Amino acid sequence: MQAPSLPKGTRDFGPEQMAKRQYVFDTIRRQFELFGFQPLETPAMENLSVLTGKYGEEGDRLIYKILNPGDYLDEAPAEILAAKDSKKLVPHIADRALRYDLTVPFARFVAMNQGQLTFPFRRYQMQPVWRADRPQKGRYREFYQCDADIIGTDSLVCEAELISLLWTVLSELGLEDIQIKLNSRKVLEGLAETAEMLDRFEEFCGILDKLDKIGLDGVVREILDKKFPQEAVDKITLINSYMTFNELDRKAYMFNLVKESDVGLKGILEIAECKKLAQKLGVPENKVTSDYTLARGLNYYTGCILEVKVNGVQMGSISGGGRYDNLTGVFGKPGLSGVGVSFGVDRICDVLEELKLYPETLKASRSQILLVWIEDEAKPGETKAHALATLAELRQAGIAAEIYPSAAKLKKQIEYAARLGIRYLGLLGPDEVKEGMISVKDLTTSVQTSVPVKDFIKNHIISN
Amino acid sequence: MQAPSLPKGTRDFGPEQMAKRQYVFDTIRRQFELFGFQPLETPAMENLSVLTGKYGEEGDRLIYKILNPGDYLDEAPAEILAAKDSKKLVPHIADRALRYDLTVPFARFVAMNQGQLTFPFRRYQMQPVWRADRPQKGRYREFYQCDADIIGTDSLVCEAELISLLWTVLSELGLEDIQIKLNSRKVLEGLAETAEMLDRFEEFCGILDKLDKIGLDGVVREILDKKFPQEAVDKITLINSYMTFNELDRKAYMFNLVKESDVGLKGILEIAECKKLAQKLGVPENKVTSDYTLARGLNYYTGCILEVKVNGVQMGSISGGGRYDNLTGVFGKPGLSGVGVSFGVDRICDVLEELKLYPETLKASRSQILLVWIEDEAKPGETKAHALATLAELRQAGIAAEIYPSAAKLKKQIEYAARLGIRYLGLLGPDEVKEGMISVKDLTTSVQTSVPVKDFIKNHIISN
Repeated sequence: MQAPSLPKGTRDFGPEQMAKRQYVFDTIRRQFELFGFQPLETPAMENLSVLTGKYGEEGDRLIYKILNPGDYLDEAPAEILAAKDSKKLVPHIADRALRYDLTVPFARFVAMNQGQLTFPFRRYQMQPVWRADRPQKGRYREFYQCDADIIGTDSLVCEAELISLLWTVLSELGLEDIQIKLNSRKVLEGLAETAEMLDRFEEFCGILDKLDKIGLDGVVREILDKKFPQEAVDKITLINSYMTFNELDRKAYMFNLVKESDVGLKGILEIAECKKLAQKLGVPENKVTSDYTLARGLNYYTGCILEVKVNGVQMGSISGGGRYDNLTGVFGKPGLSGVGVSFGVDRICDVLEELKLYPETLKASRSQILLVWIEDEAKPGETKAHALATLAELRQAGIAAEIYPSAAKLKKQIEYAARLGIRYLGLLGPDEVKEGMISVKDLTTSVQTSVPVKDFIKNHIISN
Repeated sequence: MQAPSLPKGTRDFGPEQMAKRQYVFDTIRRQFELFGFQPLETPAMENLSVLTGKYGEEGDRLIYKILNPGDYLDEAPAEILAAKDSKKLVPHIADRALRYDLTVPFARFVAMNQGQLTFPFRRYQMQPVWRADRPQKGRYREFYQCDADIIGTDSLVCEAELISLLWTVLSELGLEDIQIKLNSRKVLEGLAETAEMLDRFEEFCGILDKLDKIGLDGVVREILDKKFPQEAVDKITLINSYMTFNELDRKAYMFNLVKESDVGLKGILEIAECKKLAQKLGVPENKVTSDYTLARGLNYYTGCILEVKVNGVQMGSISGGGRYDNLTGVFGKPGLSGVGVSFGVDRICDVLEELKLYPETLKASRSQILLVWIEDEAKPGETKAHALATLAELRQAGIAAEIYPSAAKLKKQIEYAARLGIRYLGLLGPDEVKEGMISVKDLTTSVQTSVPVKDFIKNHIISN
């Protein structure tokens, strides 16, 4: 006999949690639609080749691969099997993999359907993704992303709209004490250019992305270990120190630091422009911070990048995103610049829980009335039949109702209703059937009244 | 350069399809909640051991296994690798698998959380499942199931409620020309008992389940091939011929056929009782048919089983379900009988499409207004800033709105709105900014009026 368990890093969501999650999903979806985004869903499985190489080396490692069905070993080279070379064997036994994010499948969708789409194309997508990461607080192996992207324009208005979207959703959820951190891959590119390490740009971003986890010391050590130029260390140390300056000074110092790189300067100006446009859209100025150390781990970013942190909570970023100039290019459709943000619903839920920000009125879906039949020994089955007809009538009128499925003791049935938070008990005995009535007991007040079913329906619909 | 593609048997859903699917999901969810079911979600990945052995031999083969991350070959026995034994290698390299249905994960959830649940426990679950089946019309490798189950009681009232649920949802979707086919595994067990092949009962059900696909001849051939007793062939042939009889005669003949088996007789009585109770719940009598040849492929069924077919459409069953007396037993928690039905949303959507049953009013989510700014050369950026502020104001008032992100030609912007079905164009030029107005053009009538933004909001909200 096996004791069942869940795979590490995954969770079940029962009725109470579902109510909370639904509240967050509904809030996000509502704003997505108010912002003019259109829904898309893609399959959980993608061809492995679609995903490989888009997320950096670490990302490739964390993609869950799906074993080919049937005799998957048939075409596996014997020498790879003999060498037990797990990595080399993968393409021979796994053609498919689980979605790692929503951005790459979106780019794949756009590349496959370009002719049918109207650009700029604004889409939203709310689906789970899977990563074989080490589970820890706020990090799951299955988690939801809620993404909004605009593709087919490089206007910075889009970045500003997405910042406004982040602020609108998060503040509506009560998360007002947040920082939206803004940088541009162009600034980092300028840095790499002036430090003469442009050929190792992605690798450099990968290291810098760990700043939050391993601190400046850790990043510096890794930069040196990996034999990057000393200048890289000096510049990163300087930039990190700028974070204590105010916005304006920070910008001026950065300008000076990358002044020999056109792309670097352009990046700084773009960040400033995004901030300005976001303000026009109503985002409070102090919520958006330029953070020139922000790197983001994914390979595909090329322009503005952003992340959202909640102040005073031990938790990684709860949302993030950025601009990618050529993600559809790898699928044969170049020339489409896009930008998107992703809400990390699972972390947002964890933070709302920790800060007790869920509305108190939030309730799990439940029946409003539990019907109970009391057997009439003179006419077996009659009250039960009557109760079933009443049940159908209530539901048809839009009242969530259920019936206790067996003639258990009344006490047991009342206990059941109480434990589930069902407010009314509807009794149907011989007298009720004879008179065409239902005896309704309000379990919150213990008041019991006998009324025609139609009256209960009418009153109940009015009181709702 | 790779031409991207989708894994066979999977699909993307763009805005138009999402609107249709959402309509079906919403209809089902609404009835689930009116019927008092509570939501549950389980992970896409389950431990492989949780799924193995629950779906029959064929089912085990069709489960998608997930490769362990990292050096998954490390502990693979060399002799299995050398023999290229795909089946034997699986447990060494894949600890996890993709959900194959929603019933087994539900049973696993119940077994793990028994102490916290109130029984009878009514849960609903709407999530995708994956099967490595050969794709064909109406058969996908990723498809949604929408399940409602009641566990912790063996009352036939539950079967009747689920039949009522099927009828309520499907008729609300316009699918009234359907047959709900009803049988009981007990009847088949009685048959197996009287034919002295009880030891091969599951195998027998597996063959009978193919009746729809391979016809009576195919089933008979397979029964003989597999060396079942001749009596099995005779009885199945007889039962199949009963299908031309009316309900009452069919029942009488079946009674006679399994009269030496108590469990068989009990099964026939239960089917009749379910039909009667479902009628009390308002299900038209002629919608529910006893079909003693119905077997259902899954191993875990023990009592009533049912399937729904749409008349006049070439499509397998669009919903199905049944009672399982001991599914939590394999997880160490015996004694909980449950029953459930599953709506096959993807097939339902295909049928609604084929029969043109989607409401004509169904529309993809889209913006109600597209804002356009006209640059004021005297004051660069001013109209754009004004347009952004207006955009935020509209959204805050609950009006789905977007802005064309660049100052493209007006003609291009109007084309964009027209292609997306956005009704209003909101122009903001120097005059509008000066006067605090917006020029709104109704693209369906070409009427253009200039109004204060607040008036547009007020009128628009009222007209919605």
